[in-house]
Amino acid sequence: MGLIIAIDDLDFRSTTKILDETCDLVDGYKFGIAFLIKNSLNELKEMRKICNKMWIADLKLADIGYIMIKNIEALSGHFNAVIAHSFVGISDALDMLFSYCKERGIKPILVATMSHKGAREIYDFVLIKIKELVEKLEPWGLVAPATRRDIITYLREILDIETKILSPGIGPQGALPGDALCAGADYEIVGRLITNSPNPKKAVEEVLSLQKEALKRCKRVL
Amino acid sequence: MGLIIAIDDLDFRSTTKILDETCDLVDGYKFGIAFLIKNSLNELKEMRKICNKMWIADLKLADIGYIMIKNIEALSGHFNAVIAHSFVGISDALDMLFSYCKERGIKPILVATMSHKGAREIYDFVLIKIKELVEKLEPWGLVAPATRRDIITYLREILDIETKILSPGIGPQGALPGDALCAGADYEIVGRLITNSPNPKKAVEEVLSLQKEALKRCKRVL
Repeated sequence: MGLIIAIDDLDFRSTTKILDETCDLVDGYKFGIAFLIKNSLNELKEMRKICNKMWIADLKLADIGYIMIKNIEALSGHFNAVIAHSFVGISDALDMLFSYCKERGIKPILVATMSHKGAREIYDFVLIKIKELVEKLEPWGLVAPATRRDIITYLREILDIETKILSPGIGPQGALPGDALCAGADYEIVGRLITNSPNPKKAVEEVLSLQKEALKRCKRVL
Repeated sequence: MGLIIAIDDLDFRSTTKILDETCDLVDGYKFGIAFLIKNSLNELKEMRKICNKMWIADLKLADIGYIMIKNIEALSGHFNAVIAHSFVGISDALDMLFSYCKERGIKPILVATMSHKGAREIYDFVLIKIKELVEKLEPWGLVAPATRRDIITYLREILDIETKILSPGIGPQGALPGDALCAGADYEIVGRLITNSPNPKKAVEEVLSLQKEALKRCKRVL
Protein backbone atom coordinates (compact mmCIF):
# COMPACT_ATOMS: atom_id res chain seq x y z
CA MET A 1 0.00 0.00 0.00
CA GLY A 2 2.48 2.65 1.13
CA LEU A 3 0.00 5.09 2.64
CA ILE A 4 -0.21 6.53 6.15
CA ILE A 5 -2.87 9.10 7.08
CA ALA A 6 -1.75 12.07 9.17
CA ILE A 7 -4.36 13.17 11.69
CA ASP A 8 -3.20 16.50 13.07
CA ASP A 9 -6.03 17.86 15.14
CA LEU A 10 -9.38 16.17 14.47
CA ASP A 11 -11.92 15.49 17.19
CA PHE A 12 -13.21 12.09 18.32
CA ARG A 13 -16.12 11.96 15.89
CA SER A 14 -14.23 12.89 12.72
CA THR A 15 -11.36 10.58 13.62
CA THR A 16 -13.53 7.53 14.29
CA LYS A 17 -15.27 8.15 10.94
CA ILE A 18 -11.94 8.20 9.12
CA LEU A 19 -10.60 5.15 10.97
CA ASP A 20 -13.76 3.23 10.29
CA GLU A 21 -13.88 4.05 6.57
CA THR A 22 -10.19 3.78 5.71
CA CYS A 23 -8.69 1.12 8.02
CA ASP A 24 -8.59 -1.57 5.33
CA LEU A 25 -7.10 0.77 2.76
CA VAL A 26 -4.02 2.16 4.49
CA ASP A 27 -0.91 1.01 6.40
CA GLY A 28 -1.45 3.17 9.42
CA TYR A 29 -2.09 6.55 11.01
CA LYS A 30 0.14 9.29 12.34
CA PHE A 31 -1.31 11.41 15.16
CA GLY A 32 0.00 14.86 16.03
CA ILE A 33 0.45 16.74 19.30
CA ALA A 34 -2.69 18.89 18.82
CA PHE A 35 -4.75 15.69 18.41
CA LEU A 36 -3.21 14.19 21.56
CA ILE A 37 -3.93 17.33 23.57
CA LYS A 38 -7.55 17.54 22.40
CA ASN A 39 -8.53 13.87 22.75
CA SER A 40 -8.42 12.03 26.07
CA LEU A 41 -6.65 8.73 26.67
CA ASN A 42 -10.03 7.05 27.05
CA GLU A 43 -11.10 8.35 23.65
CA LEU A 44 -7.80 7.10 22.22
CA LYS A 45 -8.54 3.65 23.64
CA GLU A 46 -11.96 3.66 21.96
CA MET A 47 -10.45 4.72 18.64
CA ARG A 48 -7.75 2.05 18.85
CA LYS A 49 -10.46 -0.61 18.94
CA ILE A 50 -11.76 0.52 15.55
CA CYS A 51 -8.50 0.01 13.70
CA ASN A 52 -5.54 -2.07 14.81
CA LYS A 53 -2.98 -0.92 12.24
CA MET A 54 0.28 0.95 12.82
CA TRP A 55 -0.35 3.94 15.11
CA ILE A 56 2.44 6.49 15.03
CA ALA A 57 2.70 9.12 17.79
CA ASP A 58 4.10 12.11 15.97
CA LEU A 59 5.35 13.92 19.04
CA LYS A 60 8.39 15.16 17.07
CA LEU A 61 10.27 14.39 20.26
CA ALA A 62 13.25 16.70 20.72
CA ASP A 63 14.23 16.64 24.35
CA ILE A 64 16.53 14.92 26.83
CA GLY A 65 16.00 11.16 27.12
CA TYR A 66 14.25 11.33 30.48
CA ILE A 67 11.56 13.68 29.13
CA MET A 68 11.12 11.88 25.78
CA ILE A 69 10.40 8.66 27.69
CA LYS A 70 7.94 10.46 30.02
CA ASN A 71 6.10 11.76 26.94
CA ILE A 72 5.73 8.28 25.43
CA GLU A 73 4.73 6.80 28.79
CA ALA A 74 1.92 9.36 28.97
CA LEU A 75 0.37 7.68 25.91
CA SER A 76 -0.23 4.49 27.96
CA GLY A 77 0.82 2.00 25.30
CA HIS A 78 -1.70 3.10 22.67
CA PHE A 79 0.98 3.58 19.99
CA ASN A 80 3.35 1.19 18.27
CA ALA A 81 5.65 3.78 16.69
CA VAL A 82 6.97 7.18 17.70
CA ILE A 83 8.73 10.01 15.84
CA ALA A 84 11.74 11.83 17.29
CA HIS A 85 14.20 14.39 15.91
CA SER A 86 17.74 13.26 15.12
CA PHE A 87 19.26 16.60 16.06
CA VAL A 88 19.06 16.00 19.83
CA GLY A 89 21.91 13.50 19.45
CA ILE A 90 22.49 10.07 20.95
CA SER A 91 24.07 10.54 24.38
CA ASP A 92 21.50 10.90 27.21
CA ALA A 93 18.81 11.44 24.57
CA LEU A 94 18.16 9.03 21.67
CA ASP A 95 20.14 6.20 23.35
CA MET A 96 17.64 6.22 26.21
CA LEU A 97 14.66 6.57 23.88
CA PHE A 98 15.79 3.66 21.69
CA SER A 99 16.37 1.36 24.72
CA TYR A 100 12.90 2.21 25.98
CA CYS A 101 11.32 1.57 22.56
CA LYS A 102 13.19 -1.74 22.15
CA GLU A 103 11.99 -3.05 25.53
CA ARG A 104 8.38 -2.23 24.64
CA GLY A 105 8.32 -3.20 20.98
CA ILE A 106 7.74 0.41 19.87
CA LYS A 107 9.13 1.31 16.44
CA PRO A 108 11.42 4.36 16.66
CA ILE A 109 11.27 6.72 13.69
CA LEU A 110 13.75 9.58 13.26
CA VAL A 111 13.38 12.80 11.32
CA ALA A 112 16.26 12.98 8.82
CA THR A 113 15.30 16.39 7.50
CA MET A 114 12.09 18.32 6.95
CA SER A 115 9.73 19.28 4.14
CA HIS A 116 9.60 23.08 4.46
CA LYS A 117 11.96 25.78 3.17
CA GLY A 118 13.41 26.48 6.61
CA ALA A 119 14.95 22.98 6.65
CA ARG A 120 17.62 24.33 4.31
CA GLU A 121 18.66 26.97 6.85
CA ILE A 122 20.02 24.66 9.56
CA TYR A 123 18.80 21.05 9.30
CA ASP A 124 20.43 20.32 5.94
CA PHE A 125 23.84 21.47 7.14
CA VAL A 126 24.08 18.53 9.53
CA LEU A 127 22.71 15.87 7.18
CA ILE A 128 26.02 13.95 7.17
CA LYS A 129 26.11 13.95 10.98
CA ILE A 130 22.51 12.74 10.99
CA LYS A 131 23.42 9.99 8.52
CA GLU A 132 26.15 8.75 10.90
CA LEU A 133 23.74 8.91 13.86
CA VAL A 134 21.08 6.98 11.91
CA GLU A 135 23.57 4.24 10.99
CA LYS A 136 24.52 3.86 14.65
CA LEU A 137 20.96 3.75 15.98
CA GLU A 138 19.31 1.80 13.14
CA PRO A 139 15.80 3.23 13.57
CA TRP A 140 12.83 1.35 12.15
CA GLY A 141 12.02 4.37 10.02
CA LEU A 142 13.20 7.73 8.80
CA VAL A 143 11.13 10.80 7.94
CA ALA A 144 12.27 12.51 4.74
CA PRO A 145 10.26 15.05 2.74
CA ALA A 146 8.27 14.20 -0.39
CA THR A 147 8.79 17.82 -1.43
CA ARG A 148 12.50 17.13 -1.82
CA ARG A 149 12.88 13.88 -3.67
CA ASP A 150 16.65 14.30 -4.14
CA ILE A 151 17.02 13.94 -0.35
CA ILE A 152 15.06 10.66 -0.32
CA THR A 153 17.12 9.20 -3.16
CA TYR A 154 20.33 10.48 -1.52
CA LEU A 155 19.46 8.89 1.83
CA ARG A 156 18.60 5.60 0.14
CA GLU A 157 21.98 5.63 -1.61
CA ILE A 158 24.22 6.66 1.28
CA LEU A 159 22.62 4.77 4.17
CA ASP A 160 24.33 1.55 5.13
CA ILE A 161 21.30 0.14 6.94
CA GLU A 162 17.81 -1.03 6.08
CA THR A 163 15.25 1.46 7.22
CA LYS A 164 11.79 2.47 6.10
CA ILE A 165 11.49 5.96 4.64
CA LEU A 166 8.26 7.81 5.47
CA SER A 167 7.51 10.95 3.45
CA PRO A 168 5.23 13.81 4.44
CA GLY A 169 4.68 16.90 2.29
CA ILE A 170 2.06 15.57 -0.15
CA GLY A 171 -0.85 17.83 -1.07
CA PRO A 172 -0.86 21.40 0.31
CA GLN A 173 2.90 21.30 0.75
CA GLY A 174 3.43 20.62 -2.94
CA ALA A 175 4.33 16.98 -3.68
CA LEU A 176 2.01 14.65 -5.61
CA PRO A 177 1.00 11.17 -4.46
CA GLY A 178 3.60 8.72 -5.77
CA ASP A 179 6.43 11.29 -6.00
CA ALA A 180 8.15 10.07 -2.84
CA LEU A 181 7.51 6.36 -3.51
CA CYS A 182 9.19 6.75 -6.91
CA ALA A 183 12.15 8.47 -5.26
CA GLY A 184 12.63 5.52 -2.87
CA ALA A 185 10.26 6.08 0.04
CA ASP A 186 8.28 3.17 1.57
CA TYR A 187 5.32 5.16 2.86
CA GLU A 188 3.76 8.45 1.92
CA ILE A 189 2.16 10.38 4.77
CA VAL A 190 -0.93 12.26 3.60
CA GLY A 191 -2.91 14.53 5.90
CA ARG A 192 -5.10 17.44 4.83
CA LEU A 193 -5.74 16.03 1.33
CA ILE A 194 -7.66 13.22 3.08
CA THR A 195 -8.75 14.67 6.44
CA ASN A 196 -10.11 17.92 4.96
CA SER A 197 -12.07 16.03 2.29
CA PRO A 198 -15.86 15.69 2.75
CA ASN A 199 -15.37 12.08 1.64
CA PRO A 200 -12.13 10.78 3.22
CA LYS A 201 -12.59 7.25 1.86
CA LYS A 202 -12.86 8.52 -1.70
CA ALA A 203 -9.85 10.79 -1.12
CA VAL A 204 -7.82 7.77 0.05
CA GLU A 205 -8.86 5.79 -3.02
CA GLU A 206 -7.79 8.67 -5.24
CA VAL A 207 -4.41 8.95 -3.53
CA LEU A 208 -3.87 5.17 -3.86
CA SER A 209 -4.77 5.29 -7.51
CA LEU A 210 -2.38 8.20 -8.17
CA GLN A 211 0.36 6.33 -6.30
CA LYS A 212 -0.23 3.23 -8.46
CA GLU A 213 -0.06 5.23 -11.68
CA ALA A 214 3.14 6.95 -10.56
CA LEU A 215 4.75 3.63 -9.61
CA LYS A 216 3.85 2.24 -13.03
CA ARG A 217 5.43 5.25 -14.70
CA CYS A 218 8.63 5.09 -12.67
CA LYS A 219 8.68 1.28 -12.85
CA ARG A 220 9.06 0.70 -9.13
CA VAL A 221 7.54 -2.35 -7.44
CA LEU A 222 6.80 -1.89 -3.73
CA MET B 1 13.06 35.91 41.80
CA GLY B 2 14.43 34.09 38.74
CA LEU B 3 12.71 30.75 39.31
CA ILE B 4 10.38 28.78 37.05
CA ILE B 5 9.06 25.36 38.10
CA ALA B 6 9.04 22.61 35.45
CA ILE B 7 6.04 20.32 35.71
CA ASP B 8 6.71 17.38 33.43
CA ASP B 9 4.01 14.84 34.09
CA LEU B 10 2.15 15.41 37.34
CA ASP B 11 -1.58 14.77 37.73
CA PHE B 12 -4.27 17.32 38.58
CA ARG B 13 -4.05 16.87 42.34
CA SER B 14 -0.27 17.15 42.69
CA THR B 15 -0.14 20.10 40.30
CA THR B 16 -2.84 22.11 42.06
CA LYS B 17 -1.05 21.50 45.37
CA ILE B 18 2.22 22.85 43.94
CA LEU B 19 0.52 25.84 42.27
CA ASP B 20 -1.32 26.68 45.44
CA GLU B 21 1.74 26.49 47.69
CA THR B 22 4.33 28.10 45.43
CA CYS B 23 2.50 30.69 43.30
CA ASP B 24 3.74 33.66 45.32
CA LEU B 25 7.31 32.40 45.39
CA VAL B 26 8.12 31.85 41.71
CA ASP B 27 7.99 33.64 38.33
CA GLY B 28 6.07 30.95 36.51
CA TYR B 29 5.63 27.34 35.48
CA LYS B 30 6.73 25.30 32.49
CA PHE B 31 4.47 22.40 31.52
CA GLY B 32 5.67 19.47 29.41
CA ILE B 33 4.01 17.34 26.72
CA ALA B 34 3.36 14.40 29.09
CA PHE B 35 1.50 16.75 31.42
CA LEU B 36 -0.58 18.14 28.54
CA ILE B 37 -1.49 14.65 27.34
CA LYS B 38 -2.50 13.46 30.81
CA ASN B 39 -4.51 16.49 31.95
CA SER B 40 -7.60 17.68 30.11
CA LEU B 41 -8.19 21.26 28.93
CA ASN B 42 -10.90 21.63 31.58
CA GLU B 43 -8.44 20.61 34.27
CA LEU B 44 -5.95 23.10 32.82
CA LYS B 45 -8.57 25.84 33.09
CA GLU B 46 -9.15 24.98 36.76
CA MET B 47 -5.41 25.02 37.46
CA ARG B 48 -4.97 28.38 35.71
CA LYS B 49 -7.42 29.94 38.18
CA ILE B 50 -5.15 28.99 41.07
CA CYS B 51 -2.12 30.86 39.81
CA ASN B 52 -2.02 33.60 37.19
CA LYS B 53 1.73 33.79 36.63
CA MET B 54 3.68 33.03 33.45
CA TRP B 55 2.57 29.69 32.03
CA ILE B 56 5.01 28.22 29.51
CA ALA B 57 3.89 25.42 27.18
CA ASP B 58 7.05 23.40 26.74
CA LEU B 59 5.98 21.62 23.58
CA LYS B 60 9.55 21.82 22.28
CA LEU B 61 7.89 22.63 18.97
CA ALA B 62 9.94 21.39 16.03
CA ASP B 63 7.65 21.16 13.03
CA ILE B 64 6.45 23.12 10.02
CA GLY B 65 4.69 26.40 10.86
CA TYR B 66 1.21 25.09 10.10
CA ILE B 67 1.55 22.25 12.63
CA MET B 68 3.28 24.33 15.32
CA ILE B 69 0.36 26.76 15.22
CA LYS B 70 -2.19 23.90 15.37
CA ASN B 71 -0.40 22.59 18.48
CA ILE B 72 -0.59 25.94 20.27
CA GLU B 73 -4.21 26.45 19.19
CA ALA B 74 -5.04 23.12 20.83
CA LEU B 75 -4.09 24.67 24.17
CA SER B 76 -7.04 27.10 23.90
CA GLY B 77 -5.24 30.19 25.15
CA HIS B 78 -4.25 28.79 28.53
CA PHE B 79 -0.56 29.65 28.06
CA ASN B 80 1.27 32.94 27.68
CA ALA B 81 4.60 31.54 26.48
CA VAL B 82 5.68 28.66 24.27
CA ILE B 83 9.00 26.91 23.61
CA ALA B 84 10.14 25.97 20.11
CA HIS B 85 13.39 24.64 18.65
CA SER B 86 15.55 27.01 16.60
CA PHE B 87 16.60 24.01 14.53
CA VAL B 88 13.55 24.09 12.25
CA GLY B 89 14.62 27.42 10.73
CA ILE B 90 12.65 30.55 9.89
CA SER B 91 11.03 30.07 6.48
CA ASP B 92 7.56 28.43 6.65
CA ALA B 93 8.30 27.48 10.24
CA LEU B 94 9.38 29.98 12.93
CA ASP B 95 8.24 32.98 10.83
CA MET B 96 4.67 31.67 10.98
CA LEU B 97 4.95 30.75 14.66
CA PHE B 98 6.28 34.19 15.60
CA SER B 99 3.52 36.02 13.67
CA TYR B 100 0.93 33.87 15.41
CA CYS B 101 2.47 34.52 18.85
CA LYS B 102 2.72 38.27 18.20
CA GLU B 103 -0.97 38.53 17.26
CA ARG B 104 -1.99 36.74 20.43
CA GLY B 105 0.48 38.20 22.91
CA ILE B 106 2.18 34.86 23.46
CA LYS B 107 5.89 35.03 24.36
CA PRO B 108 7.98 32.91 21.97
CA ILE B 109 10.96 31.17 23.54
CA LEU B 110 13.60 29.40 21.42
CA VAL B 111 15.94 26.59 22.38
CA ALA B 112 19.50 27.79 21.70
CA THR B 113 21.13 24.52 22.69
CA MET B 114 20.41 21.74 25.17
CA SER B 115 21.60 20.52 28.58
CA HIS B 116 22.53 16.90 27.85
CA LYS B 117 25.73 15.37 26.42
CA GLY B 118 24.09 14.66 23.04
CA ALA B 119 23.75 18.41 22.40
CA ARG B 120 27.46 18.40 21.60
CA GLU B 121 26.95 15.88 18.79
CA ILE B 122 24.85 18.02 16.44
CA TYR B 123 23.20 21.05 18.11
CA ASP B 124 26.43 22.80 19.08
CA PHE B 125 27.77 22.67 15.52
CA VAL B 126 25.12 25.10 14.33
CA LEU B 127 25.29 27.52 17.28
CA ILE B 128 26.46 30.38 15.05
CA LYS B 129 23.58 29.78 12.65
CA ILE B 130 21.20 29.73 15.60
CA LYS B 131 22.70 32.99 16.88
CA GLU B 132 21.94 34.64 13.50
CA LEU B 133 18.41 33.22 13.50
CA VAL B 134 17.81 34.45 17.06
CA GLU B 135 18.97 37.97 16.16
CA LYS B 136 16.55 38.03 13.23
CA LEU B 137 13.54 36.73 15.17
CA GLU B 138 14.18 38.47 18.51
CA PRO B 139 12.38 35.92 20.70
CA TRP B 140 11.23 36.93 24.15
CA GLY B 141 13.40 34.19 25.61
CA LEU B 142 16.10 31.65 24.91
CA VAL B 143 16.64 28.26 26.53
CA ALA B 144 20.28 27.56 27.36
CA PRO B 145 21.55 24.86 29.73
CA ALA B 146 22.58 25.50 33.32
CA THR B 147 24.86 22.49 32.99
CA ARG B 148 26.97 24.42 30.49
CA ARG B 149 27.54 27.88 31.87
CA ASP B 150 30.09 28.78 29.22
CA ILE B 151 27.28 28.64 26.63
CA ILE B 152 25.10 31.04 28.67
CA THR B 153 27.93 33.53 29.06
CA TYR B 154 28.85 33.14 25.39
CA LEU B 155 25.26 33.80 24.25
CA ARG B 156 25.02 36.87 26.51
CA GLU B 157 28.23 38.21 24.97
CA ILE B 158 27.58 37.55 21.30
CA LEU B 159 23.86 38.30 21.04
CA ASP B 160 23.00 41.70 19.66
CA ILE B 161 19.47 41.70 21.10
CA GLU B 162 17.81 41.78 24.49
CA THR B 163 16.35 38.42 25.36
CA LYS B 164 15.67 36.53 28.55
CA ILE B 165 17.77 33.43 29.11
CA LEU B 166 15.97 30.49 30.76
CA SER B 167 18.15 27.66 32.07
CA PRO B 168 17.08 24.08 32.75
CA GLY B 169 19.45 21.38 34.00
CA ILE B 170 19.45 22.14 37.73
CA GLY B 171 19.29 19.22 40.17
CA PRO B 172 19.41 15.68 38.74
CA GLN B 173 21.12 16.96 35.59
CA GLY B 174 24.02 18.35 37.57
CA ALA B 175 23.87 22.16 37.95
CA LEU B 176 23.31 23.87 41.30
CA PRO B 177 20.72 26.60 41.94
CA GLY B 178 22.36 29.93 41.15
CA ASP B 179 24.93 28.52 38.70
CA ALA B 180 23.04 29.71 35.62
CA LEU B 181 22.00 33.06 37.14
CA CYS B 182 25.66 33.80 37.90
CA ALA B 183 26.55 32.90 34.31
CA GLY B 184 24.04 35.43 32.95
CA ALA B 185 20.66 33.64 32.87
CA ASP B 186 17.45 35.43 33.93
CA TYR B 187 15.49 32.41 35.08
CA GLU B 188 16.45 28.97 36.32
CA ILE B 189 14.02 26.20 35.46
CA VAL B 190 13.83 23.62 38.24
CA GLY B 191 11.73 20.48 37.97
CA ARG B 192 12.29 17.22 39.83
CA LEU B 193 14.17 18.88 42.72
CA ILE B 194 10.85 20.58 43.57
CA THR B 195 8.15 18.33 42.08
CA ASN B 196 9.61 15.09 43.52
CA SER B 197 9.96 16.62 46.98
CA PRO B 198 7.44 15.61 49.67
CA ASN B 199 7.35 19.33 50.57
CA PRO B 200 7.48 21.36 47.34
CA LYS B 201 7.12 24.70 49.10
CA LYS B 202 10.12 23.99 51.31
CA ALA B 203 12.07 22.80 48.26
CA VAL B 204 11.29 26.10 46.47
CA GLU B 205 12.44 28.09 49.50
CA GLU B 206 15.68 26.13 49.59
CA VAL B 207 16.30 26.72 45.89
CA LEU B 208 15.62 30.45 46.29
CA SER B 209 17.97 30.65 49.23
CA LEU B 210 20.74 28.83 47.31
CA GLN B 211 20.19 31.19 44.36
CA LYS B 212 20.50 34.21 46.67
CA GLU B 213 23.72 32.94 48.21
CA ALA B 214 25.19 32.21 44.77
CA LEU B 215 24.26 35.69 43.49
CA LYS B 216 25.93 37.22 46.52
CA ARG B 217 29.09 35.21 45.85
CA CYS B 218 29.22 36.09 42.15
CA LYS B 219 28.13 39.69 42.87
CA ARG B 220 25.28 39.75 40.37
CA VAL B 221 22.16 41.78 40.99
CA LEU B 222 19.04 40.52 39.21
